[in-house]
Amino acid sequence: MSTRERLVRETAALLERKGYQATGIKEIVRAAGATPSSLYHHFPGGKQELAVAALGHAGERFADLLRGALAREPDVDAAVAACATDLADDLAATDWADGCPVAVTALESVGDSPLLRTAAADILRGWRELIAARLRAGGIDADAAIDLACTVVSILEGAELQSRVTAGPGALHTAATHLSWLVRGAVRAESAPARSG
Amino acid sequence: MSTRERLVRETAALLERKGYQATGIKEIVRAAGATPSSLYHHFPGGKQELAVAALGHAGERFADLLRGALAREPDVDAAVAACATDLADDLAATDWADGCPVAVTALESVGDSPLLRTAAADILRGWRELIAARLRAGGIDADAAIDLACTVVSILEGAELQSRVTAGPGALHTAATHLSWLVRGAVRAESAPARSG
Repeated sequence: MSTRERLVRETAALLERKGYQATGIKEIVRAAGATPSSLYHHFPGGKQELAVAALGHAGERFADLLRGALAREPDVDAAVAACATDLADDLAATDWADGCPVAVTALESVGDSPLLRTAAADILRGWRELIAARLRAGGIDADAAIDLACTVVSILEGAELQSRVTAGPGALHTAATHLSWLVRGAVRAESAPARSG
Repeated sequence: MSTRERLVRETAALLERKGYQATGIKEIVRAAGATPSSLYHHFPGGKQELAVAALGHAGERFADLLRGALAREPDVDAAVAACATDLADDLAATDWADGCPVAVTALESVGDSPLLRTAAADILRGWRELIAARLRAGGIDADAAIDLACTVVSILEGAELQSRVTAGPGALHTAATHLSWLVRGAVRAESAPARSG
């Protein structure tokens, strides 16, 4: 793995566990087995530029989890519910220490780093689009799919927060049930005869 | 307002805007017009003990918002949806700078502060119980109400994250629609004849 890759991965891991503010340049360099000068060589913008790359890396990893869950189940409601159960399995494997680096970094930087905020917004949009594509493939109209995908991401993020705080999968498993309800409701709404028709 | 109260309120405001890690003792003392010695007089445990009190204060403020929304609407689905729209109005009023100090502090401290994590878990449970009580009053069975309340909190937290990152109410307004769907579905499930009956 290149120095650049190690810097990105170690930064992503640190952001997951403690957030942007508590992650120092020295700690990143040490974890990546790199030097400060190599960090500034690859990331002239320093910690903020490196954090944007780390968010992109972490966002892509979560997108992979979503793609896996969404592709595995033939029924669209089960596919969306699987996103929550797969996430629960993933987080339990790290004893709830790892989480969504995008959420914590975004919340810390809403006020003072437009760069990080924009990066987080782009990643969230990418996740919504993945989910919306699966909802459309399951028979849901395009506008309804993008709205529902937004709420799916909300549920996943909020249930992850509650699961990590309680160190248990309860909130994510409950989320899976309700995700399935929501998607079945949207599918039924599509197949019902139009009111004005 | 007493020095203690000012310390708690200013800490809550700083946690909302930038999180726990970036909030320094010096900044708290300056914002509250206090001295470091008065801070340690009221909070011998320093920043961590003060943060627990600030989370309690912020948690109670959000509980007030929930109580207001839940009591205003006679229909239980509209009451729960109003939690999301009231939250959108509240956050828009600060131009999306203020948010949930509980979420960001919890995410930053899952790994290394059991004190903050426990405080956050207690606050989240208090919110779930408020919402569950309203769901039960609306005719939903006690077990279903506590599960659904958990997902309501997940949706509110996740939609708040997305709304703050995009600096717009879209995700929270969409959440209101889906909250209403979920609650109506739960009410219908209660009124349907039991399958085994």
